[in-house]
Amino acid sequence: MAESWPFLDTFEPNFRPLVVIELAKGTKEETIEWFTKRIVDKKANGGAQLLIKPLVMENGDENIYLVGASHLRLLLGAETVGLVKECNDNSMRTFTYSSRKTFKDFADDNHNFLTMAECQYIIKHELENLRAKDEKMIPGYPQAKLYPGKSVVRRLLTSGILVQIFPLHDREELKKLRHSWYGQVKVGYQPLDEIRCYFGETIALYFGFLEYFTFALIPMAVIGIPYYVFAWEDYDKYVMFATFNLLWSTVILEVWKRICAIMTYRWGTLLMKRQFEEPRPGFHGVLGINPITGREEPVYSSIKRQIRIYLVSLPFVCLCLYFSLYVMMIYFDLEQWALDYHEENESNFSSLMLFVPSIIYAVVIEIMNRIYRYAAEFLTSWENHRLESSYQNHLILKVLVFNFLNCFASLFYIAFVLFDMKLLRQILNQFAESLLPYWLQKRHKKRMKKRMCSLKTDTDLSLVEQVNLEKEMGTYFGTFDDYLELFLQFGYVSLFSCVYPLAAVFAVLNNITEIYSDALKMCRVYKRPFAEPTANIGVWQLAFETMSVISVVTNCILIGMSPQVNALFADSKTDLILTVALVEHLLLAMKFIMAFVIPDKPRDIQIKLAKLEFESLEALKQQVRATDMYNREK
Amino acid sequence: MAESWPFLDTFEPNFRPLVVIELAKGTKEETIEWFTKRIVDKKANGGAQLLIKPLVMENGDENIYLVGASHLRLLLGAETVGLVKECNDNSMRTFTYSSRKTFKDFADDNHNFLTMAECQYIIKHELENLRAKDEKMIPGYPQAKLYPGKSVVRRLLTSGILVQIFPLHDREELKKLRHSWYGQVKVGYQPLDEIRCYFGETIALYFGFLEYFTFALIPMAVIGIPYYVFAWEDYDKYVMFATFNLLWSTVILEVWKRICAIMTYRWGTLLMKRQFEEPRPGFHGVLGINPITGREEPVYSSIKRQIRIYLVSLPFVCLCLYFSLYVMMIYFDLEQWALDYHEENESNFSSLMLFVPSIIYAVVIEIMNRIYRYAAEFLTSWENHRLESSYQNHLILKVLVFNFLNCFASLFYIAFVLFDMKLLRQILNQFAESLLPYWLQKRHKKRMKKRMCSLKTDTDLSLVEQVNLEKEMGTYFGTFDDYLELFLQFGYVSLFSCVYPLAAVFAVLNNITEIYSDALKMCRVYKRPFAEPTANIGVWQLAFETMSVISVVTNCILIGMSPQVNALFADSKTDLILTVALVEHLLLAMKFIMAFVIPDKPRDIQIKLAKLEFESLEALKQQVRATDMYNREK
Repeated sequence: MAESWPFLDTFEPNFRPLVVIELAKGTKEETIEWFTKRIVDKKANGGAQLLIKPLVMENGDENIYLVGASHLRLLLGAETVGLVKECNDNSMRTFTYSSRKTFKDFADDNHNFLTMAECQYIIKHELENLRAKDEKMIPGYPQAKLYPGKSVVRRLLTSGILVQIFPLHDREELKKLRHSWYGQVKVGYQPLDEIRCYFGETIALYFGFLEYFTFALIPMAVIGIPYYVFAWEDYDKYVMFATFNLLWSTVILEVWKRICAIMTYRWGTLLMKRQFEEPRPGFHGVLGINPITGREEPVYSSIKRQIRIYLVSLPFVCLCLYFSLYVMMIYFDLEQWALDYHEENESNFSSLMLFVPSIIYAVVIEIMNRIYRYAAEFLTSWENHRLESSYQNHLILKVLVFNFLNCFASLFYIAFVLFDMKLLRQILNQFAESLLPYWLQKRHKKRMKKRMCSLKTDTDLSLVEQVNLEKEMGTYFGTFDDYLELFLQFGYVSLFSCVYPLAAVFAVLNNITEIYSDALKMCRVYKRPFAEPTANIGVWQLAFETMSVISVVTNCILIGMSPQVNALFADSKTDLILTVALVEHLLLAMKFIMAFVIPDKPRDIQIKLAKLEFESLEALKQQVRATDMYNREK
Repeated sequence: MAESWPFLDTFEPNFRPLVVIELAKGTKEETIEWFTKRIVDKKANGGAQLLIKPLVMENGDENIYLVGASHLRLLLGAETVGLVKECNDNSMRTFTYSSRKTFKDFADDNHNFLTMAECQYIIKHELENLRAKDEKMIPGYPQAKLYPGKSVVRRLLTSGILVQIFPLHDREELKKLRHSWYGQVKVGYQPLDEIRCYFGETIALYFGFLEYFTFALIPMAVIGIPYYVFAWEDYDKYVMFATFNLLWSTVILEVWKRICAIMTYRWGTLLMKRQFEEPRPGFHGVLGINPITGREEPVYSSIKRQIRIYLVSLPFVCLCLYFSLYVMMIYFDLEQWALDYHEENESNFSSLMLFVPSIIYAVVIEIMNRIYRYAAEFLTSWENHRLESSYQNHLILKVLVFNFLNCFASLFYIAFVLFDMKLLRQILNQFAESLLPYWLQKRHKKRMKKRMCSLKTDTDLSLVEQVNLEKEMGTYFGTFDDYLELFLQFGYVSLFSCVYPLAAVFAVLNNITEIYSDALKMCRVYKRPFAEPTANIGVWQLAFETMSVISVVTNCILIGMSPQVNALFADSKTDLILTVALVEHLLLAMKFIMAFVIPDKPRDIQIKLAKLEFESLEALKQQVRATDMYNREK
């Protein structure tokens, strides 16, 4: 088949397959020919200038292609995506092909200068930015319309011609990573740098945050244990615990920003100016000139986007939140009704009826959750964000708020409307203890899967077998659900910490197992995900900070409601409330001052960033000077 | 005398005097010779390469010198201080001498390319950065020690040899400015661009803020009038007014940031990277290499500074605040005691005694204020900040907090401890109405001064007469006191707005006259101040924002305490407090969300800044590339 593509560079001596493209069965020849031509075509002709080879399968009806690129092409691609690498003088700089010699570990024959994850990211970027020129449609599929600037791959995906694109695992590397990550029984840090090399920055940051967060919870857990063991119920001890918790949660979130800056500086992503990159493939608009970079790309008015966000998305989200609260109120009514019914005519049926409201509520919430998630994705995509990070942040924010309400609104209702601390403690306890069996079961399931996978992986696989195996593996849909789990956990730990001090203990235990099970999941269960360079955990930082502010309020109210405190202010309830309000305001003020005073980046990183900025500005001056001299010589 | 300095470039055809240096009477000849040599000496020899001429006075015992600079020297100086100017393509760029042709309005013979204020700023910068080389002391004054890197001018000032340095007024320009600023009776905006050209950005920004703030208060004033006229005391109307006030104050502060960005972008200071400049003259430390710019300059460990701030300055400020509160409590006790005494034995003496506590308190507060101000200046200077802006911010913060407490603590005490709304309203009313006569008196005084000055200025003065006149004029000590006045006024308007809605009306009236009297002051009363480039109003923004947050709290409490609201919640005081707390939290949350959602810079400014950053990074890439090519050719 290869002979029919004379433009394919079949003489590339060491073609290394990096990315797999699976086309639908029975895709028309002309489409395949056009698509592969676009992929291998020169940049100047609007192609991606990559290498592509068909994978010959035993049953010949599958259209699977392997994509690779020459070493030179990858280096040029690294410049296009703006990778930042370490220089010989230990500073971090944006990689350019012409300055390649100044970078650490660079040699023309060193094919490991770029990690495999980086190579795959470059190829993904190039494929996604393969945009239609003057084609009106995808050849062979008149219904799949194209217009200048439309991402070809995206149209192929939405019209079902392209089934999937995924990067290949590197069996050798994966084995090494697995061993150092969770293969040996040891207490220690995760190999974050290795994870980053293999899976990219987003996933490495997630594991970094998970690890950091677990360590940060340990003091809270340690302090929480005696409250449970000795059944401490003293006023002053609770206040101490809550105060410690609140200040501690501020400190850990501020310190995380600093740690994150240190890590991402080392990885180069802190300096990557992603806002100057080409837009995300889903971004659409009329072809125009980007006012910042001067490049030709789709442009979309930011005012239109603002209107969509504030006049459509925001009201929709508010409506959903209201609806969700409404459903919750119905649930509480139903529950009350079932209780009354049970008391009036006690029978087997009536005691069975007691469970019905909870079951109905759980089912309804789950359905609502799914519908809402689809709606949120649709809306965020419709808002047409230019940057992937901005898209992600808006999507996360939408889903987050809804999940927060679903998880905690009922607890808030129980605590602050029904004033039923016993029930609250019971529910929290139930929740925490349910983590244990859940975790055991997860562990068991994973062990099963592990055995299953090991059978296949430990023998040396041919490329065909490997591709066949991996293309059937599940797809990892990003760190969203993992972060959400952590976020809700943080809510359980901090919002009601003075009612249930043991929550932190369970959270630590859960997170330790979470690290292992998530690691297993990444290495064994899922297809390798594409690396995604990122400099921070984005809107999650904001979410955790907001949660920690809310928890100041809830904890102060809970302490104020405790019988011990009420006994102290037996003669005047007004004094009690005023005192609580005062303490709350002082704590909030302290939090804001702390957040303001602790710098987001350590001083040495600040200096390095300022140095880079200074050098850039100097270079700009030099350039203007050089241009001027050139003009004068002319 | 001039012949004794062969190095003086007496052939400079058009020496334009820009800055006046006054040395103490009887300064030793060798000192004068050394100092002037340092000023005119070549940059390469560690001099400032400026021009200097003695001013021959009628009575010959005064040592007054005029400093100027050649056109070329000023252009090179503009590059050193990093001035940003508009290019021919309407973008703002850092000025460099070699790229001078690309700037708007540049011509080799156009001596107005740099404004006079800019020229004077450049000369001041060069004089202040005249640093000791290997001199151990100032020649002729062995007690005035020098060490490498010490600012010569600063040492001369502290040892009393140098009396003052000030920039000369430009009588022609000043006349024009006066006319367009306040010379004609008209309603309109101030000529901020002209003010900026003449007085520099800091002063122009102050007047811009004053004007903006006055306009922003008008809606509050208009809404406040009917409350006074119709003596509205309804609960819902007060709540409406307070809510409007709170949201409005958030909006105006956010919008100010945007307006400020637009102005300072046009003026070029938004792009000036002042952190890359040479340190402020008061900064000391061992000579070292700045890690960012690579230049040789004094370096001082930031950890040491942090320790000084947090372990010395902060406790000192807290102690002073505590002491001030303590004095206030004594005052209230005295007041109570005088009242009791008056009631017991009523007599002329006893009614006179009623005033004694207030008088003592006022005097003590004034004394404390002055001592504290000195201490704050000493401490901030001792903290050894590298940048003038950082020094200013720390100083302002210290003085601000103390003044805030002195002004408002007693009002807080009256409102929230004594619950005496009548007294509070009375005091606020007194304060507001006292502004009127104060203003009339100020106006009168100014008119006197004006007549006085006019006599001298309207006739054409010789240079000698002008210098003699100006050197006796008062020195303008910066915008601090003007901002402080505005800040405290904002406090009176917003903190108790629902008790005294008329405050905004008085504030508007006061500010309108303030604009005129401050303008008069700048043009007539004071020496011309040196221009100080700045991109924003610094810590004042934070101060106003904090005030607006505090005012949410106070207004909510005041509304909660009003008899109308108390009547609504007659049956349960607890419900009342909880409702107030809920409303307050919602308002605070709304404020923070609004501050988060409204971008600090308008979109087009954001794009222009991003474009500059992009170009800088591209230039850096190009530079590395060029260096590489150069190395290879070698």
